[in-house]
Amino acid sequence: MITDLFTPNFAQPAGSPIRELFPFLSKAGIISFAGGYPSLHLLDAEGLREAAARALADGASCLQYGATEGVPRLRDALAELAAARGIRCASGDVLVTTGSQQAFDLLVRVFVQPGEVVYVETPAYPATIQALRLAGALIREVPVDADGLDTRRLASMLASAGTSERPKLLYSVPTFSNPCGTLLPPERRDHLVRLARQHGFLIVEDDPYGELSFTRSVAQPLYSHGAKLDGAENPVIYLSSLSKTVAPALRVGWMIAPREVIRRCAIAKQTVDLCTSPLNQLIAAEYLASGRYPETVAGARFEYQRRMQAMVESLDEFLGGKLRFVQPKGGMFLWAENMVALDPKALFKASVDAGVLFVPGAAFFPCTPDPQTMRLSFAAPGVDDIREGVARLARAFEQASIDF
Amino acid sequence: MITDLFTPNFAQPAGSPIRELFPFLSKAGIISFAGGYPSLHLLDAEGLREAAARALADGASCLQYGATEGVPRLRDALAELAAARGIRCASGDVLVTTGSQQAFDLLVRVFVQPGEVVYVETPAYPATIQALRLAGALIREVPVDADGLDTRRLASMLASAGTSERPKLLYSVPTFSNPCGTLLPPERRDHLVRLARQHGFLIVEDDPYGELSFTRSVAQPLYSHGAKLDGAENPVIYLSSLSKTVAPALRVGWMIAPREVIRRCAIAKQTVDLCTSPLNQLIAAEYLASGRYPETVAGARFEYQRRMQAMVESLDEFLGGKLRFVQPKGGMFLWAENMVALDPKALFKASVDAGVLFVPGAAFFPCTPDPQTMRLSFAAPGVDDIREGVARLARAFEQASIDF
Repeated sequence: MITDLFTPNFAQPAGSPIRELFPFLSKAGIISFAGGYPSLHLLDAEGLREAAARALADGASCLQYGATEGVPRLRDALAELAAARGIRCASGDVLVTTGSQQAFDLLVRVFVQPGEVVYVETPAYPATIQALRLAGALIREVPVDADGLDTRRLASMLASAGTSERPKLLYSVPTFSNPCGTLLPPERRDHLVRLARQHGFLIVEDDPYGELSFTRSVAQPLYSHGAKLDGAENPVIYLSSLSKTVAPALRVGWMIAPREVIRRCAIAKQTVDLCTSPLNQLIAAEYLASGRYPETVAGARFEYQRRMQAMVESLDEFLGGKLRFVQPKGGMFLWAENMVALDPKALFKASVDAGVLFVPGAAFFPCTPDPQTMRLSFAAPGVDDIREGVARLARAFEQASIDF
Repeated sequence: MITDLFTPNFAQPAGSPIRELFPFLSKAGIISFAGGYPSLHLLDAEGLREAAARALADGASCLQYGATEGVPRLRDALAELAAARGIRCASGDVLVTTGSQQAFDLLVRVFVQPGEVVYVETPAYPATIQALRLAGALIREVPVDADGLDTRRLASMLASAGTSERPKLLYSVPTFSNPCGTLLPPERRDHLVRLARQHGFLIVEDDPYGELSFTRSVAQPLYSHGAKLDGAENPVIYLSSLSKTVAPALRVGWMIAPREVIRRCAIAKQTVDLCTSPLNQLIAAEYLASGRYPETVAGARFEYQRRMQAMVESLDEFLGGKLRFVQPKGGMFLWAENMVALDPKALFKASVDAGVLFVPGAAFFPCTPDPQTMRLSFAAPGVDDIREGVARLARAFEQASIDF
């Protein structure tokens, strides 16, 4: 029997809790706050068509295999983009990956053996948790507050950790986190990189949302804070993606890291997919070269802020006092804790019945789920749908409270 | 120090022996028999541009994330393509992967734990060997002869294997193997699937070259032989790719397997790259729907056969008696054993000096390398270059024999 041959991890595997919500999306008229999908209307389809036409006009390199590290033109363009975000690096420090999900997966292969400890800012993106679980890592939750990762509590965790509990990696989304939408303040960023230096672990800074800021202040990436540490290697590996601002379908992400890390991740990538689609890399390079990117990002930032505002106002109006949340400072997500007595499973069911979908928060905890939490994405629906969706959510709350 | 944090596998990792030849390719005027690249002139750039334009005209689905299992239109088209190759399957049996390399990597994750035994038809594709090594598998070499995998010797290996030596998987390229170009006869195919059934292992049938046949006879895939076994599940998992006939840059491969395998590989894929580029999948689907695929394959088959013939004739003329090889029956590769006394390292160096590149055969052995072997690809260079390249190789042989 084939089923006898699976590894223990895959004997009875659970899929992504977010992707398992897909069937509900086909329910007629449902409003979804569930996915992490960017709004299609905010992607620059016209600009991408032009970029693709230019990429395809180059008959040779857009068809053949490419170097595992990435197409040189794109590595150059991503190093430039990094510079605009406050990161100083060379093209050779950039590894192009098939989405930033792959970048994280490569790091896990290169750094983590079964039974080794990895710290994860919690709540966290479920695919990160799943990648670590499948690798047999021991995941430890690092708590967050309204400002993101709580570096003081991290410092105590590290101080009391025995040898076998020392982390190799710490995973964080410091800028407009998924799922919390928080922004880590500069002094915590400094504290975090100093802790990494002191305790000898690496920080994986995942930054898909950094450009979607709702305030005028610009956060320096953790990577830049790490680069300022005196006389030693930067403990931060930086990941980013074009999926939230250009197009998820390109599957273009990247990693910025020391050369010895890039080299090993490239070797791992040879066995994973040989290279990221050179066609998509060329389309991405052409798009970045077209000069349309800043305007596209500005448009997305403006519209996501409008939608976030609509969600916050609707939550205050329809669910005031029943949900606790911090207004997101950027990104795509709002994280909420339920303040009333009800069964979270009943709430989810009542919500689907009422025609609104969210991701139950339990999925975002690697160890100790808080079932009275939820992630609401304001990225995909328009403001009218957001208002209507929150009204439906309020009805579901009422229903679930009555049933409780 | 970051270098202290790598896993033992990545402390001093060796990259792909084929990709490490890349620097030599930039040598002026060099003729390369090294890569596994299809000839750019045989890819249908015009048809792909048209397919891409149609895919991009569908503004929505070509930009957004897609289902992990693949875009439905492409899964349908690949099930049809499989039918044309003698495989009966439904769209739900197909998992689209980011090249067939990813399909193999997913299978390794789902089936192989460190210390478990995997059988590999040897010589074998180096990226397969590397994926298994990095997963900590115990690789056992299954010998081949002029007809491919030697099933009688496999039967003895299996008969004498203790419990801890029982394989979970066996990897084979039965149709125009890489690197040998051999074609496994039908009676061996039957024998192989019966052995798999009897000893409870799975066969991974890698079939990127099956359509590049130089004879009129059509080989039924191992998968079809496995499907004919009475009253039990098929022990064969089938992998294929569009990289050799449509375009490597699309990074579109696929797996055909029982649903419980597809489901688990899809779960693994969620942590690896979420989904294969939906844009590339739509381009592939549009291309297959355009009706141009059969003609493109026929053109490639004709030209590769011409080039193979040119290589065989040149080898006979310039190196007769010095190299032993079996004339390939299809695919892209010729495998040769050196019959004269020389230092293989000196031969490689003399070849580069003479302006011709090949892959030293040692890279194709997981356990016990035979250094007096080499892989020559006839796919990329034209017939004149093939003739000139073999003449250069003959000069290198002379040089290396003198120096010995």
